[in-house]
Amino acid sequence: MATRGRGTQDITRDVARIVGDSRVRDGLATVWIHHTSASLMICENADPDVRRDLEAFVSRLVPDGDKLFVHTAEGDDDMPAHVRTVLTQTSIGIPIADGRLLLGTWQGLYLWEHRTSAHRRQITVTVIGE
Amino acid sequence: MATRGRGTQDITRDVARIVGDSRVRDGLATVWIHHTSASLMICENADPDVRRDLEAFVSRLVPDGDKLFVHTAEGDDDMPAHVRTVLTQTSIGIPIADGRLLLGTWQGLYLWEHRTSAHRRQITVTVIGE
Amino acid sequence: MATRGRGTQDITRDVARIVGDSRVRDGLATVWIHHTSASLMICENADPDVRRDLEAFVSRLVPDGDKLFVHTAEGDDDMPAHVRTVLTQTSIGIPIADGRLLLGTWQGLYLWEHRTSAHRRQITVTVIGE
Repeated sequence: MATRGRGTQDITRDVARIVGDSRVRDGLATVWIHHTSASLMICENADPDVRRDLEAFVSRLVPDGDKLFVHTAEGDDDMPAHVRTVLTQTSIGIPIADGRLLLGTWQGLYLWEHRTSAHRRQITVTVIGE
Repeated sequence: MATRGRGTQDITRDVARIVGDSRVRDGLATVWIHHTSASLMICENADPDVRRDLEAFVSRLVPDGDKLFVHTAEGDDDMPAHVRTVLTQTSIGIPIADGRLLLGTWQGLYLWEHRTSAHRRQITVTVIGE
Repeated sequence: MATRGRGTQDITRDVARIVGDSRVRDGLATVWIHHTSASLMICENADPDVRRDLEAFVSRLVPDGDKLFVHTAEGDDDMPAHVRTVLTQTSIGIPIADGRLLLGTWQGLYLWEHRTSAHRRQITVTVIGE
């Protein structure tokens, strides 16, 4: 999956399609991201300002170029990306009912790219059930 | 499940009952909350001051009415509730052994309401095993 | 598992061995830590400075002896340990493919001891699949 640098992208439909193709009716879909500078999040999917505000909040909480950090060889945004990943999710288990992800009305699943530059990111969905 | 506004409530017994009713002896119980302004947490269950202090810490970390936020139409506590949810858990997978949740002595499972007003919150428990 | 006080230790191989012994080829390994003052994290496994910087960041974010905290009977580092646990993971579900943990190249699984003194910590790995 290609990202365009720091920010979130909705991957709910991609994961829903994998669940649909699996033919599992009831069970669990566990989403995994194979990286330590990008993460997963469940977030409100109606108003894009919510993701904007999340980005603003986390950027203030974990500022790029913080003098605290020693690991700076890969850029000012690299160590903050690791911190952001640790404070959010690498793995999320979502229930499946009637062959669909059992998400709340306002829940979307997002890939959160924490590096400022574009990256390719790999995600695995493990579907368990019957 | 009804909440009384911002704060935590112990849902360990509710989830334990669902696991007991499932007749699964060994496996995994994945707890899911269907919202983006309330979350789940595993926390020390002995001294209520621990949850009080967690609430105080998170209230200071993510202050209501922060001028940083643009998404304010639903109230001063709404965007902070989304941030608190993203920094905690929407999904928790707990092992089951001998038909019981394999919790540590001091571990309790809590629903954390992040909105200041009372809400109804939906939780799904997916039990997998044999 | 014995810790030497605050800091991280790589438990990737321990969990990989349990998965290997289970004979499960494809499925999910859910790692659970039975405590509320130590947690789990997926982190970059190449440069030890990344974990050093994470420790520095979290120590600044959740300072020991913070006057905000009421729950202080067990020491200045106890309530911060609970906060650190809530902000990171108690449960992580990792996919299994071909009998192995499907980790990204730079992903390691760490036990994060948040108390300053050494502790014994219990971890359970639930392996599901076939």
